[in-house]
Amino acid sequence: MRNNNRQWILKKRPVGKISNDDLELIETNIPEPGEGQALIQNIYLSIDPTNRIWMSDIDQYMPPVDIGHVMRGGCTAKVIKSNTPELLEGQYISSFTCGWQDFAIVTPSETSPLPEERKLPLTAYMSAAGFTGYTAYFGLLNITNPKPGETVVVSTAAGAVGSVVGQIAKIKGCRVIGITGSDKKCEWIKSLGFDETINYKTQNVLKELSKKCPEGIDIYFDNTGGEILDAVLTLINQNARISVCGLISMYNEDKPVPGPYMYRNILMKRARVEGFIVSDFMSEWENAAAQLAIWIDEGKIQYKVDVQQGLENALSTVNMLFTGENEGKLILQVSDE
Amino acid sequence: MRNNNRQWILKKRPVGKISNDDLELIETNIPEPGEGQALIQNIYLSIDPTNRIWMSDIDQYMPPVDIGHVMRGGCTAKVIKSNTPELLEGQYISSFTCGWQDFAIVTPSETSPLPEERKLPLTAYMSAAGFTGYTAYFGLLNITNPKPGETVVVSTAAGAVGSVVGQIAKIKGCRVIGITGSDKKCEWIKSLGFDETINYKTQNVLKELSKKCPEGIDIYFDNTGGEILDAVLTLINQNARISVCGLISMYNEDKPVPGPYMYRNILMKRARVEGFIVSDFMSEWENAAAQLAIWIDEGKIQYKVDVQQGLENALSTVNMLFTGENEGKLILQVSDE
Repeated sequence: MRNNNRQWILKKRPVGKISNDDLELIETNIPEPGEGQALIQNIYLSIDPTNRIWMSDIDQYMPPVDIGHVMRGGCTAKVIKSNTPELLEGQYISSFTCGWQDFAIVTPSETSPLPEERKLPLTAYMSAAGFTGYTAYFGLLNITNPKPGETVVVSTAAGAVGSVVGQIAKIKGCRVIGITGSDKKCEWIKSLGFDETINYKTQNVLKELSKKCPEGIDIYFDNTGGEILDAVLTLINQNARISVCGLISMYNEDKPVPGPYMYRNILMKRARVEGFIVSDFMSEWENAAAQLAIWIDEGKIQYKVDVQQGLENALSTVNMLFTGENEGKLILQVSDE
Repeated sequence: MRNNNRQWILKKRPVGKISNDDLELIETNIPEPGEGQALIQNIYLSIDPTNRIWMSDIDQYMPPVDIGHVMRGGCTAKVIKSNTPELLEGQYISSFTCGWQDFAIVTPSETSPLPEERKLPLTAYMSAAGFTGYTAYFGLLNITNPKPGETVVVSTAAGAVGSVVGQIAKIKGCRVIGITGSDKKCEWIKSLGFDETINYKTQNVLKELSKKCPEGIDIYFDNTGGEILDAVLTLINQNARISVCGLISMYNEDKPVPGPYMYRNILMKRARVEGFIVSDFMSEWENAAAQLAIWIDEGKIQYKVDVQQGLENALSTVNMLFTGENEGKLILQVSDE
C-alpha cells in the first residue's frame, strides 16, 4: 500500500478544454478516520462528462467543486480502516465523495455497498450494472416510454450510456439508429443489434437520418446537444419525446451557446423535451439493477469498459471523453483490486 | 347583403413582417353551395399569430396555405343558404375553413355550431369561451399541472390566451407574474389578479423576474420564445414545466433563429418543455367550455376583445399582433351580426 495520498486539486475553472494548469496533483498524508468514519482506498475512478461540469461554476444540479478542493468523482473503493460498524474492513463500496485521490475518509451514508457475491467483474458495477446502466434505463424507459415499432435515435451511441440505451430500445421492440464518431464504433454498436448507424465525423447527420428514419423520429436520447440535436429536431414526428441526458457538445464552451435552431419544432410537432439525472430515480435503482443484471446475464445487454491506468493520468483521461477516443465506459484504475 | 365576394389571396410567402404585396384582395362571385354543403357569411375573423405561420412554408402543424389560395382563418359565421339538414339557415357556427373572405362554402364536418341560447356575446365564443380560452385551459392545466403556491410566469400576459392562463393559475392558487408590452396592459392584468407584472419594453426582464420570483419559477407558459424564454430558463426551479404555446418572437424571422442560450438548464434543472396545440385536446373541449363558462359567469375570468372593422383591413390588423398594439383578443368584423 502507498504511504502517502495523492490528490488532484482544482486550481482554477477551465476555459474550454481542461488544461494542465487547471488542476494540480499534490502529495499529502493518508488521513485518519474519526469516530463513525472509514478510510477507503480508491480502486477505480469513474471518468464522466459530468466531471467537466463540476469544474465549472455554471448553474448545475450539484454544487460545483470549490477552488482549492479535491476534484469530485465517482469511484469503486475498498474499506481499509473503519471506525463504524456499517463499513467493514475489506468491503467494496461505491461512492461519489471519494474524489480524485488515492485515499478518502467517508461516512456510511456517502457509500453504497457492492453485492457481496458478485457475478460480474468489479468494473461492470461502474458501467452497465451501475450508474451508466441506470441512466440509460430511466432516461429511456421513464422519460420517453418507448413503444414497439417506434424509431429511436441515440447520440454518443457507443458510449457507456448510449450503448445500453440502444440495447434496451431493441429489447422494447423499437427501430434504433445510433450516432457515433468512428467506423469502428459503428461496427461495434451494429454488433449489439442497432439497426442503423451514422458516423457523425464522416457523414452528414441530417442527410443520413433522413434516409435511415423514413418514418421520422419518435424518440431521441440526447447526450450531445448541438448540431445533432438540430438534425433530429428537423425530423421528429408528432408527439416525439426527447430525453436530455447530456449536452457534451456544450460543456467545453466558454461563451453562451445558442440552443437548437429548430427549437420551434417542439411547438410544431408538439414534442416533449425533458431533462433528468439518474439520482431523480434513486427509489427505483434496486429494480433497475435487478433488471439490468438479468439482461446482462442473458446476453441481451453487452458492455465495454475502457480502463486507463494511473491517478497521475486523470487529466488526459477525462479529456478523452471530448475527443471520443475512449471505447466504452471510461474508468481510471488507481490501485489493484 | 353584399352582391360579391371579396377574398384575400396569398400571392407570395412573407419575408419578415407581412407586406402589402404578399396578399391581394380580389373580388369574385358569391359561390353556390352544392349538395351537402352550405353557404356561410363571415361575421368575425379570428386574427391570430398562427395566421403568420400558415403564410410561411416552414414545417408546421397544419399544411401551409398554398400560393394563389384564400388565406386561412378561424371565424364566426352565419349560415345563409344550406343544402344539408345539419346546417340550418340563420344558424351561427364557428369554423377554421371559412378563410379571409366575405362568403365561404362549408360542409357540416368543418363547422362547430355555437350554443343556441347564448349567455355571452358572440365575440366571447371567439375568445375566453372559445379557442383561446381552451388553449389557456389545456396548455396550463394539462401540460404543466400547477400546484398551489407554485410560481407561474406567463408571456404575452395581456393577450387573449395569456390573460386567461394567468386567471386560471390564480384560481389554482399559484403566484402569477405576467410579462407584457405596455404599462396600460400591466395595469389591466394587475386588475385581473396577477400578483406581479413586467413591461418587457421598458424593463429588464431577467432583472425583474429575479426580483419578482424570489423562490424561482416553477411553470412558464410561453407564447414568445426568444429573450424572455432565455430569462425564464435562467431562473427555473428543479422540475420546472414549460408549456410551449407560441413562439411569436420567431415567426417573422426570415433566417434560422437560435434556440434559447440557456437550453442547458433543461438538463441542469431536469425541466420538461412541451409543445401543444389546442386541437390535441378536442375530446375534452366540451368539459373545458363548460368550466370556462362557469368561471366567466362567476367573474373569475374576465376577458377583453379588440374588434377591428373591415375585411379590407386584414393585413394591418394581423400585423398589430407583432407590434403588440391590440388589447385583448384581436377580431376583425367583416359583416353585421
